[in-house]
Amino acid sequence: MPAFEPVDAHFERRVRESFARQGAMRLLGARLACVEPGRVDIELPYRDDLTQQHGYFHAGMTSAIADSAGGYAGYTLFPADSSVLTVEFKINLVAPAAGEKLVATGRVKKPGRTLTICEFEVVAAKNGEQVLCACGLATMIRLSDRPDRPRAE
Amino acid sequence: MPAFEPVDAHFERRVRESFARQGAMRLLGARLACVEPGRVDIELPYRDDLTQQHGYFHAGMTSAIADSAGGYAGYTLFPADSSVLTVEFKINLVAPAAGEKLVATGRVKKPGRTLTICEFEVVAAKNGEQVLCACGLATMIRLSDRPDRPRAE
Amino acid sequence: MPAFEPVDAHFERRVRESFARQGAMRLLGARLACVEPGRVDIELPYRDDLTQQHGYFHAGMTSAIADSAGGYAGYTLFPADSSVLTVEFKINLVAPAAGEKLVATGRVKKPGRTLTICEFEVVAAKNGEQVLCACGLATMIRLSDRPDRPRAE
Amino acid sequence: MPAFEPVDAHFERRVRESFARQGAMRLLGARLACVEPGRVDIELPYRDDLTQQHGYFHAGMTSAIADSAGGYAGYTLFPADSSVLTVEFKINLVAPAAGEKLVATGRVKKPGRTLTICEFEVVAAKNGEQVLCACGLATMIRLSDRPDRPRAE
Repeated sequence: MPAFEPVDAHFERRVRESFARQGAMRLLGARLACVEPGRVDIELPYRDDLTQQHGYFHAGMTSAIADSAGGYAGYTLFPADSSVLTVEFKINLVAPAAGEKLVATGRVKKPGRTLTICEFEVVAAKNGEQVLCACGLATMIRLSDRPDRPRAE
Repeated sequence: MPAFEPVDAHFERRVRESFARQGAMRLLGARLACVEPGRVDIELPYRDDLTQQHGYFHAGMTSAIADSAGGYAGYTLFPADSSVLTVEFKINLVAPAAGEKLVATGRVKKPGRTLTICEFEVVAAKNGEQVLCACGLATMIRLSDRPDRPRAE
Repeated sequence: MPAFEPVDAHFERRVRESFARQGAMRLLGARLACVEPGRVDIELPYRDDLTQQHGYFHAGMTSAIADSAGGYAGYTLFPADSSVLTVEFKINLVAPAAGEKLVATGRVKKPGRTLTICEFEVVAAKNGEQVLCACGLATMIRLSDRPDRPRAE
Repeated sequence: MPAFEPVDAHFERRVRESFARQGAMRLLGARLACVEPGRVDIELPYRDDLTQQHGYFHAGMTSAIADSAGGYAGYTLFPADSSVLTVEFKINLVAPAAGEKLVATGRVKKPGRTLTICEFEVVAAKNGEQVLCACGLATMIRLSDRPDRPRAE
C-alpha cells in the first residue's frame, strides 16, 4: 500500500469536522476512529435498531459506514477548500455482520485530481475475534468549488 | 419488464412481516409502500439525522433503502419457508439526494433458484418533482433452510 | 427512458469512426449496429475463439461489447472535440451466453458534464429466441481536451 | 492475506487444462503465469488488435483477463469434479492500460461452498515500471454437478 502525502496539513481536523456534520453517522452511533493520510476507520457498535430481519447488522448500515470510511479516506488527501461526494460503490457482503461492533476501514487505492478510487473492508468483532464481513470499492469525486457544508439559504 | 408469478400466495404478508423485523428500517423511518410480485417500493421521508455533511440524504441511507427494496423484490418470489440475504450490490449516486422524500424501487431482473438479480432506482421527490438520484444492481441469495427471523438462543 | 438531444449533429459518424479505431472490436468480429442519441447496439456473432471452457461466450467478451456499447452510448451525447473513457463498470452474468450472436445495448441513464452513467444489457440470440444473459452499469468520463485517437509520437 | 489449502492436489493441472479450453484467452494471446492456491496470474502481451480508440488496451480486454484470473483463483480451491462461472464482477479502470504487457492477478478474498469472492488487480508493465491500471471484485459460483468442459451434443 503506498504512503500518501496530504496537501492539507489539517486534514484530520477537516475530516473530523465533516464527519460531525453527518446527521446519519450520529443517528447510527458511528464513531470516527483512525484518521491517517489515505486511511479512515469508522466503528459502529451493535444496537437492535441497526439490524435486518435475522438480527445481524443491516447491509445498509454496513454500507453506510463503509461508504463514509471510503469517502473520508479520499478526503484526507484533498485540499482544504474542497469537498467529497460518492460517485458509486460496490460492496460484497461476504459473511453475516454479527457481533458487538463493526469496523469499516477505507483506504485510497488510487488518488486523482478529479476521481479518487478507494477500497474498504468491514470486519465484525465478536467474542474477541475479527471476521471479515464486507469488502468493496468506491469512486469518489472531488468538488473543488464546493465547501463541505450545507449551502446557506 | 416481465410479469412474475409468486409461488407463495401470501408473499405480501411475508414481506411486510420481515420488513417489520428490520430494526434499521424503523430507525430510519422508512416505510414499505408497494409490494407486488417482483417489485417493492420503500419510502424514506427527510429528516436531519439522515444526512451527510452537505445536508443531503447520506449515500448510506439511500443505499440502505435501495438494498432493502431490491432484497424484498426478490423475496416476493421466494417460497414461504425461505429467507433472503444480499450477496452484493452496486449503486451509482447520480444526483444529490435532496428533497422531502426518497422512494426506492426494487425490481427483479432475473429470478433464480439460488441467486436472484434485482435492479433498483431511487428518486427524490422535491417540490412536486421527481429526480433520479441513484440506480444500481444487486445479487440476492435464497436461503432455503433458514427462517426469516433471528435464531433462538 | 428520456429522449436525448445530441450537441454534435455528426455524433453517428464520430461514433462509427471511433469504433473503427478499436482494434479489439475488430479482433472479436464485433459490429456496430444501432447508433442513436444516448443508445448504441453492438453485435457479436459466435466464434469458437470467443468462448470460455464450457463453449459459451467468455464473460470477458460479453463484457467487452457491453463496455463499448455503454461508452459509445455516452459518446453520442458528447461534443465533437471530446473523447470518452470508462471509469468503471459492473456486470451481472445472469445466464449462459449461448447462441449464434450476442447483442449488447448501451443506454445513457444520466448524462453529465464530467461523468455520464450508462446501463447495458446483453441478449443472446439462439434459435430465434432472445435470452437476457448480462446486465450492468457503467460510469464514463468525458475528456474535453483529448482527441479520440492515439497521440502522435 | 490468508493461506489457502486446496482440496484437490491437482488443482494446478485442472486450472491449466481449463484455461487451455478457453478459446477467448487464446485469441487474445493471454498466458497463464502463476497458479497457486487462491491465486492466479494471467499475462497479456500488447498487440494492436487489443486496443481501444486511443491505442491503449481495451477495457474489455483488461476485464477479460481480470475476470479469468479471478475465476481461476477461485477454481484452485474447488473440488476436482466441479466447475466455475462468474456471477458478476466490478472493475475500476484507474489508469490508461498502456505498456508492453498487462498482468492480471486474481486472489480469493473469501472462499465459500457456493459463492467465492475474489479480488483482482491489473498492472501494466511499461519501460520496466509497473503501473496499477485496474482493480475489482468478482463473485464466482461453484457448479458441483457440472464438468468443466462443453456438454457432449
